[in-house]
Amino acid sequence: MKDLTVAEVRLTPILVADPPLLNTQGVHQPYTPRLIVEVVTAGGATGVGETYGDTKYLELARSFARRLPGHPVSDLNGLLALAGALPLDGHRTDGSVDVGGLRGVQTADKLRLSVVSGFEVACLDALGRTLGMPVHALLGGKVRDRVEYSAYLFYRWAAHPGGEAAGSDDWGAALDPGGIVAQARRFAADHGFGSFKLKGGVFPPEEEVAAVRALAEAFPGRPLRLDPNGAWSVETSLKVADELRDVLEYLEDPTTGTPAMAEVAARAGGLPLATNMCVTTFPEIAEAFTAGAVQVLLSDHHYWGGLRNTQQLAAVCRAFGVGVSMHSNTHLGVSLAAMTHVAATVPGLEHACDTHYPWQTEDVLTERIAFLDGAVTVPDAPGLGVTLDRDRLDALHRRWLADDGSMRDRDDAAAMRRADPRWETPSVPRW
Amino acid sequence: MKDLTVAEVRLTPILVADPPLLNTQGVHQPYTPRLIVEVVTAGGATGVGETYGDTKYLELARSFARRLPGHPVSDLNGLLALAGALPLDGHRTDGSVDVGGLRGVQTADKLRLSVVSGFEVACLDALGRTLGMPVHALLGGKVRDRVEYSAYLFYRWAAHPGGEAAGSDDWGAALDPGGIVAQARRFAADHGFGSFKLKGGVFPPEEEVAAVRALAEAFPGRPLRLDPNGAWSVETSLKVADELRDVLEYLEDPTTGTPAMAEVAARAGGLPLATNMCVTTFPEIAEAFTAGAVQVLLSDHHYWGGLRNTQQLAAVCRAFGVGVSMHSNTHLGVSLAAMTHVAATVPGLEHACDTHYPWQTEDVLTERIAFLDGAVTVPDAPGLGVTLDRDRLDALHRRWLADDGSMRDRDDAAAMRRADPRWETPSVPRW
Repeated sequence: MKDLTVAEVRLTPILVADPPLLNTQGVHQPYTPRLIVEVVTAGGATGVGETYGDTKYLELARSFARRLPGHPVSDLNGLLALAGALPLDGHRTDGSVDVGGLRGVQTADKLRLSVVSGFEVACLDALGRTLGMPVHALLGGKVRDRVEYSAYLFYRWAAHPGGEAAGSDDWGAALDPGGIVAQARRFAADHGFGSFKLKGGVFPPEEEVAAVRALAEAFPGRPLRLDPNGAWSVETSLKVADELRDVLEYLEDPTTGTPAMAEVAARAGGLPLATNMCVTTFPEIAEAFTAGAVQVLLSDHHYWGGLRNTQQLAAVCRAFGVGVSMHSNTHLGVSLAAMTHVAATVPGLEHACDTHYPWQTEDVLTERIAFLDGAVTVPDAPGLGVTLDRDRLDALHRRWLADDGSMRDRDDAAAMRRADPRWETPSVPRW
Repeated sequence: MKDLTVAEVRLTPILVADPPLLNTQGVHQPYTPRLIVEVVTAGGATGVGETYGDTKYLELARSFARRLPGHPVSDLNGLLALAGALPLDGHRTDGSVDVGGLRGVQTADKLRLSVVSGFEVACLDALGRTLGMPVHALLGGKVRDRVEYSAYLFYRWAAHPGGEAAGSDDWGAALDPGGIVAQARRFAADHGFGSFKLKGGVFPPEEEVAAVRALAEAFPGRPLRLDPNGAWSVETSLKVADELRDVLEYLEDPTTGTPAMAEVAARAGGLPLATNMCVTTFPEIAEAFTAGAVQVLLSDHHYWGGLRNTQQLAAVCRAFGVGVSMHSNTHLGVSLAAMTHVAATVPGLEHACDTHYPWQTEDVLTERIAFLDGAVTVPDAPGLGVTLDRDRLDALHRRWLADDGSMRDRDDAAAMRRADPRWETPSVPRW
């Protein structure tokens, strides 16, 4: 067999055009940082992975990349051990480090797991290419041939404040129920999505309730989800649950923190609660599951440390009767392929996965991944089954190089301040 | 790559000599049934696995073996799905079926998982041989180079009632503290074991407490365990816990059922409880972990459906802060190799694994697996790293063929009745 030892690691930070999607903390920047990881084996196989590209992630990835050569790409457990041993220079000694965003309090471990996820995917890709096996086969084999995704609806503006042109789209604004329904219709027509998630926490709850009811009328019987990113109080959450119980598949992170989620779950009259906020690491599971705070857990291989950890997370959920779905942050085709491979191997994945991918006008692949009837066909080619387009990768990297630093760290609040200079990240509960 | 499709499956039921080891239900038979599974791929690789060989397991394995050809050995998730779809003809329609023994109420699912475990190991062995990778690498890579095992001490007779000669040993009887300490000394001298487990539930608790105290005196500071297989009441369990708290690493299955275990755990003053009885399937985990009934879970890839399920079980335990160790039933070298490979990949395995292997005078391998300083070196050869000895296998199979049926199903109570015709399986709590 060809040599599986890592001989070289290439890290390519890029800036990817992102539309002005709104959430409770602000608005997406015109460009969002991502990191493309390439692992080259002594046997000549190259594997690719993708993860967050913000400065703190990039620094840690560079440190990780220096330590990886010499390790076999099959030593996936070793990656986690290697990541666990990485120093986080310059961060607070209590192990917590603020990387911002919607992921709750950040810790050194969360940061490490997000970084290692990109390397794990790249190693699996290289291993699969070497062995002639698709990544899903390396994960024990697919249990389905297609993975369903959900349309990810956002309140949004037509253009970014300042009007950056690169990568701009023709979606126009969506700021009311009519705009959200129109967006959903286009997603359904273009990609065949049959379930719909609205990112909420942007407008007062009654407006978002109206938008979901409009979706229910436009798409009767289809699974709907609403996710205000923890912006509501327990009482507001319960009021929304009452008003939408008949049409929601689940209510996602209505409120912040496990105790508040548990209270909502206990009083929500059977409406399932989902989360990608109060449980994003293994140590957070026990309290939430014991308290019955969560009925559906949104996995995310970037958060949880890779595809194998995602499978283990799904096993924990299965043992506790907690459903599994999949969270998404802005990502490109490499991560969509990785998400599809692991989702294909998870038994009992009964909820369509989230993905931002249709919002991205740019990618680093030679061929965009297509949704057919709302699903991605699970690739059976060796590795992830995707091919990097080096010209596209270089172009996005040059954008990163040329940036003055203002876009190299995603900051939805700073982006919002370009429209509203007085904007501050709202404290929770916002409503 | 060579063709991974299963072309042929060979099942070889065997009878293996077993010493007269005592437990709360009776005594081991002179011979115990095991099943050797061989999976041959179209590419010419042969993989080997081992599991229970009792009639009900064998019937199901034959049914499974007929369905396996055509599936790739890499489709490990598919094995579980295939097993789940197997009919259990002739068994009760509620899905429960009594296969006896110390494993609690048997269900169709437990039976299926035990059978599939032998096939999963054989598939992993064949896959590893094809790819040139050790099984631990197929499981994500070893995190340790040696796996520690514990000396498994038994009250025992010198010979079986009736005195069958084949496979008899020279250990002599051990029926009191002195006999147990002598047994432990020989285990320590022969194999270097540094921790000791006594199978209890045989004599009144005070005698077994005395044996453990004698071990503590003979091996000061070494981890000790006592396992009466659920034979005690809550009050008896608490009394023993009080008397042995200072010397036990953990107390294993002192009483029967999760509620009773939870009560003992709550009142045992911090002495950890271990189990391989009240939690032997994924659906049993939630109640036990939520109730705090178990502090150490004894995994067993035969019970849990294979090596990958064992890893997932370990992940569930890790998420809930429950320790992991490994249970053993009478087994040969194929299973010891499988146990060693998976144990090598489990992070945080802080307790030595159980094994009956040193009690077995017979094996089906060309070379017995050795313990060095109480540990097995993790094999790095392709697959499991073991080689079947066809002559030995044939000899044990001929014994199975020649048997009149009396040994083809392990029945410790029936074996005990050959010494004591009035013996009945004791009801619990026995003390």
